[in-house]
Amino acid sequence: MLASDSIGKEFVVTCFGESHGRCVGVVVDGCPAGLPISERDIQEEVDKRIPLKPQIVSARREKDVVEVLSGIFDGFTTGAPICTLVWNKEAVSGEYDQIRDVPRPGHADYPARIKYGGFNDYRGGGRFSGRITVAFVMAGAIAKKLLGLFGVEVLAYAVEIGKVKVEKKLTIEEIRRNTYKSPVRCPDLGRAKAMEEEILKAKSEGDSVGGVVECVALKVPVGVGEPIFDSLDADIAKMLFDVPAVKGVEFGAGFKVAQLRGSENNDVYAISGGDIVTLTNNAGGILGGMSSGMPIVVRAAIKPTSSISKEQKSVDLSEMEETLIRVRGRHDPCIVPKAVPVVESAVAVVLAEHMLRAGVIPKVLREKG
Amino acid sequence: MLASDSIGKEFVVTCFGESHGRCVGVVVDGCPAGLPISERDIQEEVDKRIPLKPQIVSARREKDVVEVLSGIFDGFTTGAPICTLVWNKEAVSGEYDQIRDVPRPGHADYPARIKYGGFNDYRGGGRFSGRITVAFVMAGAIAKKLLGLFGVEVLAYAVEIGKVKVEKKLTIEEIRRNTYKSPVRCPDLGRAKAMEEEILKAKSEGDSVGGVVECVALKVPVGVGEPIFDSLDADIAKMLFDVPAVKGVEFGAGFKVAQLRGSENNDVYAISGGDIVTLTNNAGGILGGMSSGMPIVVRAAIKPTSSISKEQKSVDLSEMEETLIRVRGRHDPCIVPKAVPVVESAVAVVLAEHMLRAGVIPKVLREKG
Amino acid sequence: MLASDSIGKEFVVTCFGESHGRCVGVVVDGCPAGLPISERDIQEEVDKRIPLKPQIVSARREKDVVEVLSGIFDGFTTGAPICTLVWNKEAVSGEYDQIRDVPRPGHADYPARIKYGGFNDYRGGGRFSGRITVAFVMAGAIAKKLLGLFGVEVLAYAVEIGKVKVEKKLTIEEIRRNTYKSPVRCPDLGRAKAMEEEILKAKSEGDSVGGVVECVALKVPVGVGEPIFDSLDADIAKMLFDVPAVKGVEFGAGFKVAQLRGSENNDVYAISGGDIVTLTNNAGGILGGMSSGMPIVVRAAIKPTSSISKEQKSVDLSEMEETLIRVRGRHDPCIVPKAVPVVESAVAVVLAEHMLRAGVIPKVLREKG
Amino acid sequence: MLASDSIGKEFVVTCFGESHGRCVGVVVDGCPAGLPISERDIQEEVDKRIPLKPQIVSARREKDVVEVLSGIFDGFTTGAPICTLVWNKEAVSGEYDQIRDVPRPGHADYPARIKYGGFNDYRGGGRFSGRITVAFVMAGAIAKKLLGLFGVEVLAYAVEIGKVKVEKKLTIEEIRRNTYKSPVRCPDLGRAKAMEEEILKAKSEGDSVGGVVECVALKVPVGVGEPIFDSLDADIAKMLFDVPAVKGVEFGAGFKVAQLRGSENNDVYAISGGDIVTLTNNAGGILGGMSSGMPIVVRAAIKPTSSISKEQKSVDLSEMEETLIRVRGRHDPCIVPKAVPVVESAVAVVLAEHMLRAGVIPKVLREKG
Repeated sequence: MLASDSIGKEFVVTCFGESHGRCVGVVVDGCPAGLPISERDIQEEVDKRIPLKPQIVSARREKDVVEVLSGIFDGFTTGAPICTLVWNKEAVSGEYDQIRDVPRPGHADYPARIKYGGFNDYRGGGRFSGRITVAFVMAGAIAKKLLGLFGVEVLAYAVEIGKVKVEKKLTIEEIRRNTYKSPVRCPDLGRAKAMEEEILKAKSEGDSVGGVVECVALKVPVGVGEPIFDSLDADIAKMLFDVPAVKGVEFGAGFKVAQLRGSENNDVYAISGGDIVTLTNNAGGILGGMSSGMPIVVRAAIKPTSSISKEQKSVDLSEMEETLIRVRGRHDPCIVPKAVPVVESAVAVVLAEHMLRAGVIPKVLREKG
Repeated sequence: MLASDSIGKEFVVTCFGESHGRCVGVVVDGCPAGLPISERDIQEEVDKRIPLKPQIVSARREKDVVEVLSGIFDGFTTGAPICTLVWNKEAVSGEYDQIRDVPRPGHADYPARIKYGGFNDYRGGGRFSGRITVAFVMAGAIAKKLLGLFGVEVLAYAVEIGKVKVEKKLTIEEIRRNTYKSPVRCPDLGRAKAMEEEILKAKSEGDSVGGVVECVALKVPVGVGEPIFDSLDADIAKMLFDVPAVKGVEFGAGFKVAQLRGSENNDVYAISGGDIVTLTNNAGGILGGMSSGMPIVVRAAIKPTSSISKEQKSVDLSEMEETLIRVRGRHDPCIVPKAVPVVESAVAVVLAEHMLRAGVIPKVLREKG
Repeated sequence: MLASDSIGKEFVVTCFGESHGRCVGVVVDGCPAGLPISERDIQEEVDKRIPLKPQIVSARREKDVVEVLSGIFDGFTTGAPICTLVWNKEAVSGEYDQIRDVPRPGHADYPARIKYGGFNDYRGGGRFSGRITVAFVMAGAIAKKLLGLFGVEVLAYAVEIGKVKVEKKLTIEEIRRNTYKSPVRCPDLGRAKAMEEEILKAKSEGDSVGGVVECVALKVPVGVGEPIFDSLDADIAKMLFDVPAVKGVEFGAGFKVAQLRGSENNDVYAISGGDIVTLTNNAGGILGGMSSGMPIVVRAAIKPTSSISKEQKSVDLSEMEETLIRVRGRHDPCIVPKAVPVVESAVAVVLAEHMLRAGVIPKVLREKG
Repeated sequence: MLASDSIGKEFVVTCFGESHGRCVGVVVDGCPAGLPISERDIQEEVDKRIPLKPQIVSARREKDVVEVLSGIFDGFTTGAPICTLVWNKEAVSGEYDQIRDVPRPGHADYPARIKYGGFNDYRGGGRFSGRITVAFVMAGAIAKKLLGLFGVEVLAYAVEIGKVKVEKKLTIEEIRRNTYKSPVRCPDLGRAKAMEEEILKAKSEGDSVGGVVECVALKVPVGVGEPIFDSLDADIAKMLFDVPAVKGVEFGAGFKVAQLRGSENNDVYAISGGDIVTLTNNAGGILGGMSSGMPIVVRAAIKPTSSISKEQKSVDLSEMEETLIRVRGRHDPCIVPKAVPVVESAVAVVLAEHMLRAGVIPKVLREKG
């Protein structure tokens, strides 16, 4: 089966649209009736993609304007599927003719051409463009609104760009306050400055850099997540790997667990203020695929932008001969800043799904007054 | 929805059974008719879990004997669902009474108790025991047989245990030859020896160690994997995070991409022997969620065994007071060796799924002579 | 889980929109790349809903204009999801205020209000309006185009309206030629005339009539349909019962089988022109949930339009007292004519799904020249 | 995709096994923890298949003994998947050699052979035998137990066999009291007698008869069922058409709606004892795909047993020549009596699914004391 543009079982997100087609849109199905939400709420999340400094992150010249086509009536969700989209206003497709035959290294061009027999919309990467993540953000806006009703907050931010890492322990307050003050979306404003330089340096060399986005989810109740195969970590990881450019995902201590002893890694239980807590959180808030009640902590490794202006080797597929390619057009020297709200949305969508599945979010939110 | 014991859309794996219940079993649905396979083929894969050195990996005293209950007739799959199981022979459940009220740190005990209202079968971890991965291996045996018909080989092996890492580049020949010669399932036999010592040292201290399992899949054709939401990396990651104890998953250069420049990370194309190849494989064989034709390379971080004999802090849930726990019973000081065939099976199952989805594996394998 | 606006596993149809919202739309996911199709092809199918005689079937004053938002590029499907919609131009919602509290007999008003806590968009029936079947027809247009490539033809037509039934055996030629010549979509033009009268008589009395739509699918290859739970008849029936107003579905001899002997009902095999055929087709082309190679024949019973101008008893839900209701607005005295293309589309969608599942339709239709 | 042995999204039923293989089994996934149930509860439902009069319905000589392999612990469901099966004790497979090449009219033999390339287990019809409906009944036993906790009762019974029909209005009391007193499972004991004669007459002529099974579900709350595509009637119909031999399904007035006026067919609302009711129930308890609060009433047409001892025409597939076949072995002259508990189970499974989906059945049934 080729169909693969839907995710989720209870909070089902179906996306459509291409980079240079008419629009990028999403249908969210399964959101209970009675959630107060407006076009503006969704717009605000989409606006988080607008760069603070255009020299660091490229921007389409015209702002994406969210339109809701269905599922919201009189300021509330109705229980019917919510379709929302942004129109593509300024597609300059001529630029992309080159990639029809010469695949860009690091891009989906080559496998896509083989898979779809050459029929895929190659303009701007088509369905494989980072632009489609607007759909993730629109779905995430709805998910976040729903989670908010139940006290759950999801926060993503950059912790690593190029060689620069956040070393200190970030407080939630800092994350809330600083993330969107920083053009690179890093709440450690000192390191954020160094990250900017890292990006500008790569850019000046016609190159790009990668990074790591971390995401925490607060106040997820205990027992959310469905083992064996729909465990919470598995579903978050699946959604994150569906975000273009993600090459690694880890929870809590992550890859460091390899070197830890059980006695170091196990998070022991204690009672604090009447609640059961763990004194550490190496598990990243997930045990046996279920939330433990501690903050969920996940990190995603983002590769450096594949589109670079440096000349690279490639192959002309129609001639079957080696050639060189220089990717033209406006490209981000680092996609981490744009990836931050996408990662946040991805995690929020999975949490909405699983809080519905666990029955934490009921099927009817309220009765209309 | 609580149902979550099935995975896959075309090669659907449904598992059942508990650590100390009657059996651990699996139903594989969607395998095309005409695949030659026997109970013995599945037994061979399950036997890979038998430790070479019992001081390193614990073993149930009686060997698991695979029984096929349906779906195979006259030496071939019939197209009907294949149910296969192993009976649990030696469950000593008394040992587990302690954990009914005092959750073991690092285990699923606490969230499971909350989630299932106390009705979950807690004996031996019940549904959350590593034992259920026998089901993964039985499903993997069928998947590997199917993939083999189409030239695809999947190989997993340990590359890191505790502080010991494989540093050299392993050849496929070495991996094939050495993995199962080593009690820790590491094809670098020198490092394997050091890994054994790492495990024995932890064990002697009543402690445990973690590690990293790597898996390569060879000769997967270009274009396997279904973007956006069922991308090949996302589905492999989901299945791997469903393996108990996995805390991180990365492909190719993985978390290192954060620090790479685009010009370093991009795998440039070339022609080799008439085929399109990339000169590096930082992508781990996956671009845009589809196979690129290069070997798929994935790594999973395995946490140190949660069950350790050292005393740990915990909480008595019925009394709501802090207490101490010392986990009794026979436990592996390191589960990496047992995780190796499980990771291999998990990857094989996802590849079978996606090669069916892409149409690389046809619906009818052959006509009966 | 509340999400329920998608159907299919390989040819996945997700619909959205409301009667008086902004639009009615559909996303078709899983259609292979390389299918030649245009907005106009879809428009033609939607146009089949336009009545020949407005006194028999009501029409919106402005024609529905199909817009394709994604998934078609340069005249071919790309393999990406196809989103297509019609905008709602003339919603006069004031008319519907009455039904907010007083449910119309025979409509979904009452259970919908309870289910969605009063938040459902009640205007024009909202999500429960027959108007949403435009989405079925748009999806059906794509399905029919795809089926056509593989020689399969799907034809629906009215066989019963009120007390008037088609008694004679219709030929395929007659069906192709006459169905859309008749305002009631009945290829027996004599009986069609009597059906018109049946409708006009009911209308003149402020009442409505029901009917039966039959659908045949020709040249479906043997073995399409997936037992046990996704059998071809089960999936066709599910899709047909999802069409508003359908109250019964039967295949071949249908309910008459109750009174037949096995020796009468069994369709015996013979060889005709080198092919295996059955001499009768009481099975309606389906055996054991799989196509037999004979024409698939299915009938759906359509209830009389619930909206009638005659006064009816109902209950005022806000006051919890009995009251009377007279449904206002423009309503079809019989929805059978409009249901004909919807039934045809529903059957076509299920056949596209199952021909993909059986591998009869390949994953790549062709290579781009 | 070939996988098709699972149904449901919340209450997921996966079945496996063949008529002459080792067993027939089922995995039920998604049943909440805390449901009191035992092997004996399931056995009781399976025992309903045992005929009262063996001259009317054939029986395997050894009784089917239900074994529960997983998911039930200490008398309650645990939240883990429940696997339960019956072993096949007396398979005499030699009898079936004849059908390898000569398909029996009315059976799945011919399409199955084509679909599975000849690899399907043809013995006793294999996967297409009525025997697999034991799996439906075991799943139904769990569903009925779960529904019972929430006051819902499901009752099936024969209303038509051959030319004999129940004409009078049956009371619920009669249905409860008489159905299993009658060898044909018809609560109208007078008509039941005539039905027996109908069966014996057909049998004496080496022939078989069909019939109609009706099923009512009482006290289903308003608003159960998920429009558009998972409507309650659609899902019940899908499950019923998955029962071998069903050729038609209708709700309430069913096919009679074609001839009714809207004013006759609409069920008008009234208040009775403080509840909203309808004065008639032509809708069969379902409006817009959701339960209306009235009894759900559905009927399934069951074809006459395909296996008859009368000689019939067929084709030898290996020789591609016409031939004659006389089906040997022990066969039911009428399968309606055995179909009654299967239909009841099928409806119960769908109701369990949908009451979970609607949130009427919560995720945690109770806390363990």
